[in-house]
Amino acid sequence: MTIRELGEYSLVAHLCQRLEGAFGIDPQVVVGLNDDAAVVETDGVRLILTVDMQLEDVHFRRRWMPPFDLGWKAIAISLSDVAAMGGRPLAALFGVGLTGDEPVDFVDAIYDGAVALCRQTSTLLLGGDTVRSPSGLLISSVVVGVMDGEPFRRNGAQVGDTLIVTGFPGEAAAGFWLLEQNLEASGSVPDAEGRHITHCVRRFRRPTPPIAAVPVMRQFPVHAAIDISDGLVIDAERMATVSKVQIVLSLPQLPLSEPLRSAASFVGKEAMGLALTGGEDYELLLAVPASAVAELCAALTTLQIPAHPIGMVEGWQAGLPVVGVSADGSREPLRGGFQHF
Amino acid sequence: MTIRELGEYSLVAHLCQRLEGAFGIDPQVVVGLNDDAAVVETDGVRLILTVDMQLEDVHFRRRWMPPFDLGWKAIAISLSDVAAMGGRPLAALFGVGLTGDEPVDFVDAIYDGAVALCRQTSTLLLGGDTVRSPSGLLISSVVVGVMDGEPFRRNGAQVGDTLIVTGFPGEAAAGFWLLEQNLEASGSVPDAEGRHITHCVRRFRRPTPPIAAVPVMRQFPVHAAIDISDGLVIDAERMATVSKVQIVLSLPQLPLSEPLRSAASFVGKEAMGLALTGGEDYELLLAVPASAVAELCAALTTLQIPAHPIGMVEGWQAGLPVVGVSADGSREPLRGGFQHF
Repeated sequence: MTIRELGEYSLVAHLCQRLEGAFGIDPQVVVGLNDDAAVVETDGVRLILTVDMQLEDVHFRRRWMPPFDLGWKAIAISLSDVAAMGGRPLAALFGVGLTGDEPVDFVDAIYDGAVALCRQTSTLLLGGDTVRSPSGLLISSVVVGVMDGEPFRRNGAQVGDTLIVTGFPGEAAAGFWLLEQNLEASGSVPDAEGRHITHCVRRFRRPTPPIAAVPVMRQFPVHAAIDISDGLVIDAERMATVSKVQIVLSLPQLPLSEPLRSAASFVGKEAMGLALTGGEDYELLLAVPASAVAELCAALTTLQIPAHPIGMVEGWQAGLPVVGVSADGSREPLRGGFQHF
Repeated sequence: MTIRELGEYSLVAHLCQRLEGAFGIDPQVVVGLNDDAAVVETDGVRLILTVDMQLEDVHFRRRWMPPFDLGWKAIAISLSDVAAMGGRPLAALFGVGLTGDEPVDFVDAIYDGAVALCRQTSTLLLGGDTVRSPSGLLISSVVVGVMDGEPFRRNGAQVGDTLIVTGFPGEAAAGFWLLEQNLEASGSVPDAEGRHITHCVRRFRRPTPPIAAVPVMRQFPVHAAIDISDGLVIDAERMATVSKVQIVLSLPQLPLSEPLRSAASFVGKEAMGLALTGGEDYELLLAVPASAVAELCAALTTLQIPAHPIGMVEGWQAGLPVVGVSADGSREPLRGGFQHF
């Protein structure tokens, strides 16, 4: 069986199982595999570690991804994992593959983008590796952080919890389609639609992982957290599966922003579809007790981190990890999101 | 100016300078850029961080690099940086790019190789990222370690120091050429030459970074250390440049092993040339006071880590960071080694 036949979801589960078998239970490992990032304890300090790769023509195209945004986004992707686990970023490393034909300015701009987000999040950028990559650009980003309390896990969602999402899922995916369809220039028109296009493109190119949300989240009983980089539904499915619950998304409650609706119609997609399965949001999905919802959403919104309740946690139903409930109360299974294989 | 015109050496120096400019001096950063790995302090713990990338058809070919060895070597490369800095490895992460056509066994073997070396060096393998890479295999390896004392730096070599090299530089490069010239099968002949071929191929495919040397090195006044992954001369040049000294390699003292000599003649290369500029050794070059040499070499050899004095540190001479001295006392400038651009 090939990797493509197995599929990404099963491949990751398979590799996790093998690695757990190889290492057994090590007391230093607080969180091993099967979560957004690993947490390991040494000399009384809990470290959080994550690595991510971005490849040209898989994750981005050179023609529409400026080098500054490439560097910014690579760091953002790793910081998003740190935020989802409840960590505080400490340092980042950066492996860059270049064809060699790029102007030096181009590489400087990649680093400038990474530096800009690192400075904004008090993360030290400590260099990395530079290699020749004849088949295109690639960036490997590593972030190491410190865990100041218990990690937020994917597997703690409890029946009766409310689901909260940060940001406006779908905007980044709308931005991707605007770029892919060469419609980005329409954003230069200074009307409302132009501003919406610019906004969504920016959400795709320069995600802002909610690192600042972590200290606030720590003041509330957050039962589970995951970042929704691959899409709301597929990441909700990951949370549901390991928590052994069903996640019920209330479709009328999904925050479909005005920029998303506007950009979605421009690229000929449904705003709801982009929000559910578009991916690239680098926002958080949280499961919290219903009693904490209003106060947590208000506290996050005060930090300029939009947060909305979007569903409930119900009892496990085999084969139905995520369902959507419409305004009329009808339920349908939800599926889909980004998978590499 | 393009990256290729600038060259790798200058690119790295340029990026280091820009990053230092961007972050200034941060008291948490014990070692920033311009060394084998970064060292950062948090909560009283000094962490060492390193990332490396291996790309198909740049660093290896699929036809001659078994997946087990690919996983092993990716971890080895990062561990080598940790050893060169004097660190103790704690945990590794692994980003793997796959075309998707690989059998699942193939990926399992990559992980098995990584697990094997991780177990041997008490490093926890905590997973990572898996992405689709249409243009070929790639592996990004991250190792995080702990620094139990002062880091070994590249920049501390002092006039009068003796240079020590571990292992037998050149063997790995001979192994590379055997593979690249399809001569590996000659190693199946059970005569002396066959055994030498097998040995060199193995040195290339499964380097064994001298992690065990670190506690021994800590008992001696090691002034400077660097790993010689890109080649003895180019890495000696890096040490000489940042230490502001001249490194004089005594060519008759270079340990040209029997396997190296045998394999070199088989691939039509000079053993001395492979030892000086072949690269891929993942061994250490150390600068130590002359008084410590005999005892340090003996202590390392006891650990099955061959170690030989190969030269001296002299005063800085502009434009001549590394020179070789022959048996007749004549001196010549030495240059060369692997550069990506």
